[in-house]
Amino acid sequence: MKLQIVWYTLGVLVAVVGLAEMVPAIVDWRLGHENARDFFLNGILCLFFGGSLILSHRVRDRQVNARQMFLMALSGWLVVSVFCAMPLYMSDLGLSFVEALFEAVSGVTTTGATVLSNLDEVSRGVLLWRSMMQWAGGLGIIAFAVVLLPYLKVGGMQLFRSESSGHSDKVVARSTQFLEGLLKVYIAMTLVCAGVYYLLGMSGFDAFNHAMTTLSTGGFSTHDASFGYFEDPALQYAAVFFMILGALPFVLYLRLIYQRRVLFFRDEQVRMLMLCLCLAVFFLTLWLWAVTSYTLEVSFRMIVFSVSSIMSTTGYTVADYTLWGGFTTLAFLLMMYVGGCAGSTAGGMKVMRMVISAKVVARQFRTLLYPNGVFVLNYQGRRLDSYTVLTVLGFLSLYVGANVLMTVALALTGLDFETSMSAAAAALANVGPGIGEQIGPAGNYADLSDMAKWILCAGMIAGRLEILTILVLFSPSYWRA
Amino acid sequence: MKLQIVWYTLGVLVAVVGLAEMVPAIVDWRLGHENARDFFLNGILCLFFGGSLILSHRVRDRQVNARQMFLMALSGWLVVSVFCAMPLYMSDLGLSFVEALFEAVSGVTTTGATVLSNLDEVSRGVLLWRSMMQWAGGLGIIAFAVVLLPYLKVGGMQLFRSESSGHSDKVVARSTQFLEGLLKVYIAMTLVCAGVYYLLGMSGFDAFNHAMTTLSTGGFSTHDASFGYFEDPALQYAAVFFMILGALPFVLYLRLIYQRRVLFFRDEQVRMLMLCLCLAVFFLTLWLWAVTSYTLEVSFRMIVFSVSSIMSTTGYTVADYTLWGGFTTLAFLLMMYVGGCAGSTAGGMKVMRMVISAKVVARQFRTLLYPNGVFVLNYQGRRLDSYTVLTVLGFLSLYVGANVLMTVALALTGLDFETSMSAAAAALANVGPGIGEQIGPAGNYADLSDMAKWILCAGMIAGRLEILTILVLFSPSYWRA
Repeated sequence: MKLQIVWYTLGVLVAVVGLAEMVPAIVDWRLGHENARDFFLNGILCLFFGGSLILSHRVRDRQVNARQMFLMALSGWLVVSVFCAMPLYMSDLGLSFVEALFEAVSGVTTTGATVLSNLDEVSRGVLLWRSMMQWAGGLGIIAFAVVLLPYLKVGGMQLFRSESSGHSDKVVARSTQFLEGLLKVYIAMTLVCAGVYYLLGMSGFDAFNHAMTTLSTGGFSTHDASFGYFEDPALQYAAVFFMILGALPFVLYLRLIYQRRVLFFRDEQVRMLMLCLCLAVFFLTLWLWAVTSYTLEVSFRMIVFSVSSIMSTTGYTVADYTLWGGFTTLAFLLMMYVGGCAGSTAGGMKVMRMVISAKVVARQFRTLLYPNGVFVLNYQGRRLDSYTVLTVLGFLSLYVGANVLMTVALALTGLDFETSMSAAAAALANVGPGIGEQIGPAGNYADLSDMAKWILCAGMIAGRLEILTILVLFSPSYWRA
Repeated sequence: MKLQIVWYTLGVLVAVVGLAEMVPAIVDWRLGHENARDFFLNGILCLFFGGSLILSHRVRDRQVNARQMFLMALSGWLVVSVFCAMPLYMSDLGLSFVEALFEAVSGVTTTGATVLSNLDEVSRGVLLWRSMMQWAGGLGIIAFAVVLLPYLKVGGMQLFRSESSGHSDKVVARSTQFLEGLLKVYIAMTLVCAGVYYLLGMSGFDAFNHAMTTLSTGGFSTHDASFGYFEDPALQYAAVFFMILGALPFVLYLRLIYQRRVLFFRDEQVRMLMLCLCLAVFFLTLWLWAVTSYTLEVSFRMIVFSVSSIMSTTGYTVADYTLWGGFTTLAFLLMMYVGGCAGSTAGGMKVMRMVISAKVVARQFRTLLYPNGVFVLNYQGRRLDSYTVLTVLGFLSLYVGANVLMTVALALTGLDFETSMSAAAAALANVGPGIGEQIGPAGNYADLSDMAKWILCAGMIAGRLEILTILVLFSPSYWRA
């Protein structure tokens, strides 16, 4: 296999990381904080390293095949994570290497699990760097989901393939055009979100950071109390709005802007996500109102915020929802698994796959009753062929399997059942907070063993890259041909 | 829909229950125990009630269609449970109605979860009645799985359809012949098992009771300490052997005896079950040997017994395996889900479905690498059509969904997460003991709320009848035509 193009791409990515590190370097330098030096040095290192890779692996032929794409996806995320972790490791945070890596992986995968506490004493450069990682990670994942996955036919993503994209040339041509549009829209939405936050009373720094981690459904905050630091209901409702925007397919925004077509409610994923959100909010609000002394408005706000945060896999918290009883805890665990829409920045199994698996079950009922009937599965007006359905269900089996394996591995490090299971789920779905005292909404991941942190890093990356993309690299036949 | 045949079948079932109740009646009468009266009265009642149903709904045409079969399966299990519960309710056990029903449902579904303690003080009639329910339930479930499910195409069971059984007439003809053979083999195996237990030192009564609950993978014992009461290693190894026999497809025994063909190691289910058992035993033995002060032999015996008991969904215990750390607990929870082979008395998702879903995932890998390749799925040398694969994966989705719903329902009654989840899993898989102090191997289900007991009754029946069979009755179109 020709690795030229892979090395070249890695070089570009590392150089971009280097350039980006200049931003927190400047911020900390202006504020006179010592971390400025670490960001600056690392930035130079990245630029040097990335530049050498680019220069030594220049390629004229930019064609990439499926095998190279798989390798690019995994190595890209890994290399970026390592280089993003370096300034955190060198900074005054006093993190071990695995802790710095955990934080970086959690950043670029838009998970939002953290090992840091006392965030209000951390330098602004570091806070900004965390937000930037998530913002860039969110952009990366949309590109990955829209450009690569449909072409690679991973987990039913071929459903989102446009008819003309069958050939590699066109993928590149179309994807360049798409990525340009995406970048503009993503930046514009972030600026709007930051503006809204600022107008509603956040400081400029907080508004900008939270805008970056809201739209990327990342969930890093600049305060220990997460979004609960901002007590203004208007701000919380604004965050709900933008978290949900982050969980919808970004292609729809592009079509809205470039083709002036409003397709949100014609999209089966969006309709189902909204339905799930409304049902969850309705029942959980009633429950919370009944079992606590909150007013109806507060109950509603707490629930609509927490539900949007978990289903969009953002992971902001305004309150510790694990204190509201076993029923709510369980409901939130389930929502983690579902996640947002395919083609968004959200993680989880994705609504699309849930819809398809529900349709399979429904069809089976009909076949039981009318054994000679022929029932066709449709998604979004198109007929589903059985191969696509199988890739979806196969993906779900694999997702459950990966979750089980990770839970077992975490339990082997000595964690209890609840913690192991929810940590595995939260990492794979790129949510952030788990369940239980240690890693729940009120805790963080600092006290886990190093081994557990390594396992969770692997889980976050696997979840972000839809598992299959990674596993395929471990099959001997990948390397054979 | 013509219900004549359904009523008639129920009549026969109830009459059989009535006849069977004479056995514990006689046992308790010979021992001078007051429960004899309850069994006798209930037996008479059942005979009267069943007899009236038979006489009033005599049918000449014994044809049954799919719709009638669904109704027969559910109503049969429900009615039998209620009539089996009556003597327990009236006896000197002091049970509430839902408790008696729980015990009876747990019996006829071969689950083995119990609300009784101090079993050594319970009358022998009652103990015998519990074992008889499980024994008959085991027989019933094999018949259901081999005769009805393949015909109804539930959850991929059409794989076990013999080519000639497409038409309803032949189903009835072939099934009569099959059931006769099954009954003989089942009785013979039970007698052999009882004989072995007796020779190895059990009392006659214990040997007979445990033989009935071993082969049916039920797991009711006549002692509070379950199989741990019998400390002789030879007895425990014998139980391992017979529990595994109960988890293998019974069709293979029939073919062994009637066609003299040894097909065990040609059967993909059997091979995979054995592989799972060996791997689980190997790793867990090493773990237990490392973390406890047990000798290697004791570790091995504890593990091989517990693993066989859980994977065959029997539910006997020789030790509280939840005290061996989070890793073993989790391993046992996973084994509950897998369960035994389709066509046996075991519950769970069934090995066959796991094998097929693993094959789907494996095929997806190959397709990712060779996008233009065509890969065929085989099971047991036959090509799997995509419809069958979809029914299998649809079943798994439904099973997971049912488990989730039950967990939520149980959490709503106030149980904690671990208890809710493992109780749901143990009921659906018809295992028996769950995880946690309350319902774990050392506890029982007596202290759960009435609501939780009702939910678990529903779960045990749903799990036993493979969920779909029941859900289809709730679809409006079932009743429309």
